[in-house]
Amino acid sequence: MGDKIKRLAILGSTGSIGRQALEVVRAFPERLQVIGLAAGRNVELLNQQVEEFHPTLVSFQEPGQHLLPLENMDFCSLEEITSHASVDLVLVATVGSVGLGPTIAALEAGKCVALANKEVLVMAGEIVSRKARQHGAKLLPVDSEHSAIWQCLVGENDLEVARLILTASGGAFRDRPLEELARVTPEEALLHPNWQMGRKVTVDSATLMNKGMEVIEARWLFEVPFGKIEVAVHRESVIHSMVEFVDGSIKAQLGPPDMRLPIMYALSYPERWLSPSFPGLDWTALHGLTFGKVDLERYPCLRLALEAGRQGGTYPAVLSAADEVAVQLFLEGRIGFLDIAGLVGAVLDRHSGASHPSLEDILAADAWAREAALNRCLQ
Amino acid sequence: MGDKIKRLAILGSTGSIGRQALEVVRAFPERLQVIGLAAGRNVELLNQQVEEFHPTLVSFQEPGQHLLPLENMDFCSLEEITSHASVDLVLVATVGSVGLGPTIAALEAGKCVALANKEVLVMAGEIVSRKARQHGAKLLPVDSEHSAIWQCLVGENDLEVARLILTASGGAFRDRPLEELARVTPEEALLHPNWQMGRKVTVDSATLMNKGMEVIEARWLFEVPFGKIEVAVHRESVIHSMVEFVDGSIKAQLGPPDMRLPIMYALSYPERWLSPSFPGLDWTALHGLTFGKVDLERYPCLRLALEAGRQGGTYPAVLSAADEVAVQLFLEGRIGFLDIAGLVGAVLDRHSGASHPSLEDILAADAWAREAALNRCLQ
Repeated sequence: MGDKIKRLAILGSTGSIGRQALEVVRAFPERLQVIGLAAGRNVELLNQQVEEFHPTLVSFQEPGQHLLPLENMDFCSLEEITSHASVDLVLVATVGSVGLGPTIAALEAGKCVALANKEVLVMAGEIVSRKARQHGAKLLPVDSEHSAIWQCLVGENDLEVARLILTASGGAFRDRPLEELARVTPEEALLHPNWQMGRKVTVDSATLMNKGMEVIEARWLFEVPFGKIEVAVHRESVIHSMVEFVDGSIKAQLGPPDMRLPIMYALSYPERWLSPSFPGLDWTALHGLTFGKVDLERYPCLRLALEAGRQGGTYPAVLSAADEVAVQLFLEGRIGFLDIAGLVGAVLDRHSGASHPSLEDILAADAWAREAALNRCLQ
Repeated sequence: MGDKIKRLAILGSTGSIGRQALEVVRAFPERLQVIGLAAGRNVELLNQQVEEFHPTLVSFQEPGQHLLPLENMDFCSLEEITSHASVDLVLVATVGSVGLGPTIAALEAGKCVALANKEVLVMAGEIVSRKARQHGAKLLPVDSEHSAIWQCLVGENDLEVARLILTASGGAFRDRPLEELARVTPEEALLHPNWQMGRKVTVDSATLMNKGMEVIEARWLFEVPFGKIEVAVHRESVIHSMVEFVDGSIKAQLGPPDMRLPIMYALSYPERWLSPSFPGLDWTALHGLTFGKVDLERYPCLRLALEAGRQGGTYPAVLSAADEVAVQLFLEGRIGFLDIAGLVGAVLDRHSGASHPSLEDILAADAWAREAALNRCLQ
């Protein structure tokens, strides 16, 4: 691996993770080359990125419109980019179900896939992890929690894992009295105590839906049953997650709340690259690190996610789709904060799921759940 | 490695580490077989151990005296035990310079050596680590701090290590006003806040001499220069040590303050064995974990150890020998607590050391330092 340059495609290059990934590329121009870029709406930023990184493969949701055509550049579908022979490593940093097809295409082409798109494994973890195994392709985590677990597992035997312990900050409302939660505003929900992230994921952090989805992701990324995955409230977001082994030893990974570091690890793996420009963690400033169990009464979305994960089949896809609608409605001021869990729970209650579903079953469940959530809200 | 039983020799079987190692053997009778036992003075306990574990090779400081002769049992020297063909793994749990010769004999015979005898690497780290390399023998740490670092390094590339961070509880007097330290008693020094250990090491924990020696050990165990080893005061002794990598990521190992766990890891390596009987760490009870820099004014012994380590050659052996005498004199009530650092510093000041010393040079420096320490005290 040593001196070989990695040829990278980034789906969702104008989003939060995509932009930070390009910062990593900027820091390591001799190790990473951008071959493909794909974005949804932000044509202005995509144009800047194309000018700076000169990808040969570009995808844009509305092709042609305002997008700079450069020499040696092809407009492609997401699947064409992720399966293209010139690509070694695909960073899937899209949001929602849009990442599912391109991820599967990349795995079928045997690519390494660094996965920052939560919904891919939440919706179709069984199918996606099977595809990876079948084609000898690697699925690499990008989330700080999964990156931490992955780093703790390096060199260890999976059979000697006793449990994974995902840490959660507790989100924006961890200290709000329960009776006030019905009245919190979208603006308040978007103030995450430790991390700067996108809007959807910040609201999901306040409900801990995000953590529930991470449990489902962890189950598929690390092939660990749900009974061996726990969530710990760790307010300081310094320990990004932990692994307990059968002999009672626990390993933890720590770092500053800077997504560039787990992104860099996914892009550098199996190497670690010297990071002169990204500030590290000052361990001498650590004090008062705390851990506690999660109060499921405060976080009903976490309970729903864990239940959907255990039920499996199409339930996690329904959870994810209903949550996407519910969070959007909350951000638009059309439902209250506590209604997010109420709406998702009601949609899950009405769902009769299939076990071992096909991709079509999953996409149908996703569409059904969106409509069910919208209809229920409009009633 | 899977189902093969490991044939174990324990030097120092009646000491604190030796007894706990035999608890591990008791818990895993199908994986560990005691071939050799060696003890210094406690003939009663050694007799019990011989009756229970039926070693074929036994060493006792005063051979024959009161020791049960059993069938198929030979009395041997320590070197004969550690180099014997029937031994796979040697646990060196002696105290002081007595472990040095047997460790080298074991390495020359290509054995795995689990090293709990601090002085071996402090006195002769350069020679011992060279012997291990030359004979393709493995040196395995037993100390909780070094075991933690070792576990954090599993599967990682040594060249990507930015620094090792050894944690220290701060010892018995971490909260005593500096001006009271001159008057503390041996009884107070023996009350360690977190760990139950032998007398010498507990006093060395109160002075942080112990931590300084661990820095020297870490330098040789992990082949990391002194400039990349730091000491962090971590009062709770939950994180046993940490490794920072070049990309800014930090890995830590956590566990309860129970020496059986790092002993078990050294004996089970490269496997981890299911530990049903040793209590693990309850992460939900963790709170208020703190980290801080060391105050070298409070801990002059640590400063002396770091200096001696950097000077190298015979200086660490002189440090260790002078400290052994000084701690003994303190425990006998003949010098005060602060005189430990005073005496060790004075002996180091008078030493003119050799670089790249032979084993004979080291043993001569050790003898010189003991006499110098005693003489200085008697002046």
